[in-house]
Amino acid sequence: MQANKQWIYAAKPTGQVGPEHFRPNDAPMPEPGAGEVLVKTTLLSLDPASRAWMMGPTYRSQLMPGEVMAGWGIGEVVKSNSEKFAPGDLVSGEYGWQQYAALPARALTKHDKAHKPEHILGVLGITGLTAYFGMIDVGRPRPGETVLVSGAAGAVGSIAGQIGKLNGCRVVGSAGGKEKCDWIVNELGFDAAVDYKAGGVYKQVKAACPAGVDVYFDNTGGDVLAAALARMNLFGRIACCGNISQYDTGTPGPGPAGIPGLLVTKRIRMEGFVVMDFYNRKSQAETALANWVAEGRIKAPVDVVEGFDKMPEALTGLFAGRNFGKLMVRV
Amino acid sequence: MQANKQWIYAAKPTGQVGPEHFRPNDAPMPEPGAGEVLVKTTLLSLDPASRAWMMGPTYRSQLMPGEVMAGWGIGEVVKSNSEKFAPGDLVSGEYGWQQYAALPARALTKHDKAHKPEHILGVLGITGLTAYFGMIDVGRPRPGETVLVSGAAGAVGSIAGQIGKLNGCRVVGSAGGKEKCDWIVNELGFDAAVDYKAGGVYKQVKAACPAGVDVYFDNTGGDVLAAALARMNLFGRIACCGNISQYDTGTPGPGPAGIPGLLVTKRIRMEGFVVMDFYNRKSQAETALANWVAEGRIKAPVDVVEGFDKMPEALTGLFAGRNFGKLMVRV
Repeated sequence: MQANKQWIYAAKPTGQVGPEHFRPNDAPMPEPGAGEVLVKTTLLSLDPASRAWMMGPTYRSQLMPGEVMAGWGIGEVVKSNSEKFAPGDLVSGEYGWQQYAALPARALTKHDKAHKPEHILGVLGITGLTAYFGMIDVGRPRPGETVLVSGAAGAVGSIAGQIGKLNGCRVVGSAGGKEKCDWIVNELGFDAAVDYKAGGVYKQVKAACPAGVDVYFDNTGGDVLAAALARMNLFGRIACCGNISQYDTGTPGPGPAGIPGLLVTKRIRMEGFVVMDFYNRKSQAETALANWVAEGRIKAPVDVVEGFDKMPEALTGLFAGRNFGKLMVRV
Repeated sequence: MQANKQWIYAAKPTGQVGPEHFRPNDAPMPEPGAGEVLVKTTLLSLDPASRAWMMGPTYRSQLMPGEVMAGWGIGEVVKSNSEKFAPGDLVSGEYGWQQYAALPARALTKHDKAHKPEHILGVLGITGLTAYFGMIDVGRPRPGETVLVSGAAGAVGSIAGQIGKLNGCRVVGSAGGKEKCDWIVNELGFDAAVDYKAGGVYKQVKAACPAGVDVYFDNTGGDVLAAALARMNLFGRIACCGNISQYDTGTPGPGPAGIPGLLVTKRIRMEGFVVMDFYNRKSQAETALANWVAEGRIKAPVDVVEGFDKMPEALTGLFAGRNFGKLMVRV
């Protein structure tokens, strides 16, 4: 019988996550039970949140060593015990890091094959929806305002910045290194870039945002958050989406100085959000994003690593900032 | 000719504010110009914001050494060159620390003599309005929720907590020392108190808020903010009103750990506000507060220090946490 290759979450990281925190496993091919569907994984998503899942409870329960590593994926139905799915259907769900998964039908979403699978996992999936709701509902940009996005070359930031542009804003992105900074400006249409690896982040933000910052879409925390706080305009909004600068370390830094003082004097709203909270308007957002992509109004860059054996190093690369756009692995 | 006693802001503090940062001055009696009104000060307000005005620009321009110390007051019209005011009128405005002030008519507000002057400067004035808009518009408490208020024995906190009670919440206050903690529970009707001077603030907050914290009305920053962040419920709201724990020091602490991480996972909204931003609804709030006071539904404690010569030490006492309720000086 064919085996089901898996990656097991083997040990809790104390510092940076690395290949040593995972081990490969050959499990038996899963058999779908009543109401379940057997899916063959084709693409698996790598996300900053993966690191948080390993450490403690978040918006999902904590992942425990010994479990199959968690992750979202897209794949094809192989066998179905549910009348809602048929073999050959294109479906997405939380498959975990494995080649096959047997999941309840209610845990799967069927997709239109007119869309590219890479887009379903990216701009039309959780990362695109995160960018959409975070920018539009939490950041609330108005035409003529300045929007700053950290992690701007990443999956969420690359889309969030472009949504800011569609709303008539000046959009500045921060990213690590000259290559990424050039890429977000030349390829994605950002107005300016801040290279957080080049130092002097505050001065760079000040120079790139001469009229101050009205909306800061924060994927990183850390130095860019500190600089943004100092440069926020009155009634500025900080959409707190992630904190990747602090995920992959055993010793998180202190909170940013100026909180809560600057929030008061500048009447700043700083608000955390998780995409699922907005799912009552999911289809509206999916339609908007699909239209923008189809019309060429936003680009949806994907960074595809080939080979299931590359899963751990792809995740390590995510935290080293090696990806341009949405990172995924072709299984 | 009668002199006008003043207190001059003499030197910028580098650490705690003290009497050495002010000097008395005998100025000539001011003469109101065209459209101006001469007011005799009867009560002057002492506010945490006074300290911030001395340090840099806030929602008002920075106060410079050599200027009359800034402050709100209430008084009686002595002479009027405006048809909007007549001698004997009860008026409030930003008089500064002086016995007489000549101000443009538009800078003054006339009050109904049916209200006690102490209430006009407190619960019906800036501090009461701050509590009202901060709790209702920013905190948005719902019946059955838990509200935590820091600086709960102070001018704003004492009213904010009672507004939380009127909204059907369990209300917990933090204050310094057993006497104040007993007072907010027994006199003001808080459900429980946290003594921030007794240490173990996180454990005290946890014990006093067994169902977590839904709304945190923050007057202080510091340890209580850190504890509140750790105990906030999903979709909690932090109304950032002030940061008094950090005002009176030359070395502000770092920002609270857990920002922005906890804001994301718990979807917390943290929002700074300044009362003036809500002045389009000022009369609505004044009416509500006046009715609550008249009906005995909220108590409006005032702490009146007798004597204009006591101004500097009254301000020092504010930062030492000596006042119970709204602090003012009878001139």
